Amino acid sequence: MVEKVNLADKLARIHDLWSPKAVGAVNDFHVKLVRLEGEFVWHSHETEDELFLVLQGRLRMQFRDREVVVDPGEFIIVPHQTEHRPVADEEVHVLLLEPGTTVNTGTAGGERTREVEWI
Amino acid sequence: MVEKVNLADKLARIHDLWSPKAVGAVNDFHVKLVRLEGEFVWHSHETEDELFLVLQGRLRMQFRDREVVVDPGEFIIVPHQTEHRPVADEEVHVLLLEPGTTVNTGTAGGERTREVEWI
Repeated sequence: MVEKVNLADKLARIHDLWSPKAVGAVNDFHVKLVRLEGEFVWHSHETEDELFLVLQGRLRMQFRDREVVVDPGEFIIVPHQTEHRPVADEEVHVLLLEPGTTVNTGTAGGERTREVEWI
Repeated sequence: MVEKVNLADKLARIHDLWSPKAVGAVNDFHVKLVRLEGEFVWHSHETEDELFLVLQGRLRMQFRDREVVVDPGEFIIVPHQTEHRPVADEEVHVLLLEPGTTVNTGTAGGERTREVEWI
């Protein structure tokens, strides 16, 4: 049975930062929701492009040579093999769309790597 | 160079109904925007799942045995090979996420089939 998903209801169930939760699958792509605050680690993904759609707050997407500010109602697609670092001065809610194989820290790995849980 | 996309700016450039426009590619998946009003045709997609994220208005997604009402801030994923018909009593703005191969009328084809233009 096909059910709809309410983004606000799902976000209310997320209590940790920088830990994307899966809320939908479109073929082999996953829709994830994540709450961000502070700075993440520099990383890239070997093969996976990654879409960040900002739902609330202001996301600063840093690249090695510049920064793109992404506000609610805007998205940015980070191509694979492109180093990036998301920064959120205040809490930001983001909808991610990416291949299901995507790891949050990409090829950098490390202590901020998270398993993706379905909510 | 990676640029952000503003959904409202793109929607302002769409003047026809039921004609999805591509605004982003995430690997082989496309992000599309579409304005809907009225009833579409019953159709399904052979292999492609299809995500409808409602940005404005109320989408009634009809299935053969029931209907799911999708409001702003909600999405529904229609699995491949599932007959569906989108209905919009008043104008609805939708963000679509689906494989780039997806045709708007699926296997039904017909006069409401549209080529996807990039905007």
